[in-house]
Amino acid sequence: MDKHSILVQLDTDSLPSVFDRVVAVDAGMQHIFSYGGVTPENVVPLVQGCIFTRGPGDLKRTAIFVGGSDVLAGELLVQAIREAMNPFTVSLMLDSNGANTTAAAAVLAAGKHLELSRTSSLVLGGTGPVGQRVARLLAKHGGQVRIGSRQKERAEAVAAAIRTDIPYANIEAISTASREDAPKALDGRELVVAAGAAGALLLPAKIRQNCGTLKVAIDLNGVPPAGIEGVDLTDKAKERDGMICYGALGVGGTKMKLHRLALQSLFERSDLVLDIEQIYALAQKL
Amino acid sequence: MDKHSILVQLDTDSLPSVFDRVVAVDAGMQHIFSYGGVTPENVVPLVQGCIFTRGPGDLKRTAIFVGGSDVLAGELLVQAIREAMNPFTVSLMLDSNGANTTAAAAVLAAGKHLELSRTSSLVLGGTGPVGQRVARLLAKHGGQVRIGSRQKERAEAVAAAIRTDIPYANIEAISTASREDAPKALDGRELVVAAGAAGALLLPAKIRQNCGTLKVAIDLNGVPPAGIEGVDLTDKAKERDGMICYGALGVGGTKMKLHRLALQSLFERSDLVLDIEQIYALAQKL
Amino acid sequence: MDKHSILVQLDTDSLPSVFDRVVAVDAGMQHIFSYGGVTPENVVPLVQGCIFTRGPGDLKRTAIFVGGSDVLAGELLVQAIREAMNPFTVSLMLDSNGANTTAAAAVLAAGKHLELSRTSSLVLGGTGPVGQRVARLLAKHGGQVRIGSRQKERAEAVAAAIRTDIPYANIEAISTASREDAPKALDGRELVVAAGAAGALLLPAKIRQNCGTLKVAIDLNGVPPAGIEGVDLTDKAKERDGMICYGALGVGGTKMKLHRLALQSLFERSDLVLDIEQIYALAQKL
Repeated sequence: MDKHSILVQLDTDSLPSVFDRVVAVDAGMQHIFSYGGVTPENVVPLVQGCIFTRGPGDLKRTAIFVGGSDVLAGELLVQAIREAMNPFTVSLMLDSNGANTTAAAAVLAAGKHLELSRTSSLVLGGTGPVGQRVARLLAKHGGQVRIGSRQKERAEAVAAAIRTDIPYANIEAISTASREDAPKALDGRELVVAAGAAGALLLPAKIRQNCGTLKVAIDLNGVPPAGIEGVDLTDKAKERDGMICYGALGVGGTKMKLHRLALQSLFERSDLVLDIEQIYALAQKL
Repeated sequence: MDKHSILVQLDTDSLPSVFDRVVAVDAGMQHIFSYGGVTPENVVPLVQGCIFTRGPGDLKRTAIFVGGSDVLAGELLVQAIREAMNPFTVSLMLDSNGANTTAAAAVLAAGKHLELSRTSSLVLGGTGPVGQRVARLLAKHGGQVRIGSRQKERAEAVAAAIRTDIPYANIEAISTASREDAPKALDGRELVVAAGAAGALLLPAKIRQNCGTLKVAIDLNGVPPAGIEGVDLTDKAKERDGMICYGALGVGGTKMKLHRLALQSLFERSDLVLDIEQIYALAQKL
Repeated sequence: MDKHSILVQLDTDSLPSVFDRVVAVDAGMQHIFSYGGVTPENVVPLVQGCIFTRGPGDLKRTAIFVGGSDVLAGELLVQAIREAMNPFTVSLMLDSNGANTTAAAAVLAAGKHLELSRTSSLVLGGTGPVGQRVARLLAKHGGQVRIGSRQKERAEAVAAAIRTDIPYANIEAISTASREDAPKALDGRELVVAAGAAGALLLPAKIRQNCGTLKVAIDLNGVPPAGIEGVDLTDKAKERDGMICYGALGVGGTKMKLHRLALQSLFERSDLVLDIEQIYALAQKL
């Protein structure tokens, strides 16, 4: 990392994330400019400060990271930043709430054990920011994807959005509102990924154990109790009941490496936009 | 730059300028403490933190930069900071909205083509922060200066203030309220500098072309349309219609160099106050 | 200091202390993350960012400093941070308003001239944050300690709290509400430390001079007039009227060294909590 390289951390929360700053230091960044409370309304001068200070050949030494706990706010901020980068650009990465690096690391883990182009999968909590991204990556690989949600219409909307971007996507929505839905949702699945809210048990142990086709279970819930009952936070390709299990910390090591790699790659060019697909492409180089 | 040198960036906007921080990195600063929302009311403990932490011999390793989009707020903040620096001082620079470095770079550009002690000039938008500073520097050189403004009384007030500080100043105010005023304002001028608000056309091409005495035209408007019609943003000593033209980006390279040089010079002593005249003196060393 | 070491400055004031940041730079810190407006309510994600980003073996390369002008707010923040550090910890230091480093430096100065285990002392302004800490350290040494306050009940409460923590403490409260109280409070004392609010004269020169037992007088008031009349801000073991005197700046050099040493020692382990007693233990290594 060039000693004049600058990472501009634009956070939608009022106090900018310590987590993201520590990762930036560990990725070798010398200069990190951290801003909290950034919105589409106040971001324009911050972006202009990035693009109007250095010559075109030096713009790759400045990059923007968008973070914060609210993924939707991050997406809107990225949109405003892209509009403000005119005529010049600096590279830009979105990882609000760690959603992109977490989803990419989870799918990378699954791909170590399954041929994803032929895998049938179920994403529980599939309408949240991480779940949507996992479903999108799995659909892009060509496998059969089910998006489970307690509100089926929300899952339908996510499926439709993915189909718009990936016309060949083999994706369907399924309700997981009641306990009886789970066996049906799981039917014929080789992979299950749980990406629900903390504290929500999405898949009881019995139902999981009774599913004859399941080969890999990935639980991205970082706070006990587990989203997939029986999977431990620290499981990393751990075999349980004949299936390969990952917990949030088991995926976390890869997530952190990917976060650092993505930050470093921002400084290779001045026109990168690292969202879920570009970050997943980087994950495959790990 | 000593590795323990600290630049304390005090910004009157709520989010401290990315622009000023990037320039500080490019000037070689290792430690930049950036504060937004700084006012005369909350600045005292920040100044005390500068003057009471290091021994008198080490105070030149700490310096304060005052910035923000509001130049008047910056001037009031500088005043409060100077009052709080007692009995010790650290060096201090004001460049809110880039007004000082921009004005100094513009006059430096003019001086490459004209003998400023004998030049008659017109400053359009002469009551704004940049225009006032350009007029002051030109008057100090000894040339004939006209300050143009749509509100002539405001131009009169600026002229009076400059005369108070520079008793020999040869300076007058002129109205530029109507289109008919422009030829009269331009009459006999060799230099015109446009320092008006973005988006305001201050000098139509025809009137400029009809002025037989005009040799140099400098347009400091950074956002199209131009303040001086026909001058391009990137013009840098470009000949157009028999006169030398500069656009905002054409002056910008010098402005950036000057900004970096001024920051670096803060650390040579602990008692500098870099406002427009001191910054212009530095510009002449470029 | 390892180049990846990070000091996270959590300040209870809205603009984080420049003073504390400068000291951190002078202690060799490369990366200082400064946050203002930190409260027990918003601190949890900041702490999680410290403990969940680095492996257990690397946690000693991140540490937290709690500061700000309000010592009680700092104490409550430390409590909230300790609760949030679960299951992992990083080292933590409290020095709101410089209270811990100032009190430790003052007692260290007294100990250079007196055998503190046998010294009878009076702490004026003994219910404030610095005074309480001075009294606690003196009591711990085993000497006879009097806590003086204009409100005797408040002094009683402080004495009771110290007795709870240090059962062998030989400590009593005394009123200093009226001028007539002072000679009685001072009676038989070898050491007097004034730690009252700025601008309050706590001990008139005459009363001090008439006290036959007094050997050392330490005035921690940093803003004239002095708290102990006749002691100068810069006194450092200066003999006046047959007694050794220290002013705030005379203690200040030691305070600054101690502040830097304490910051550096944070990075030796990942489980330190540096409050008054731990900081005083470090002071004894100076």
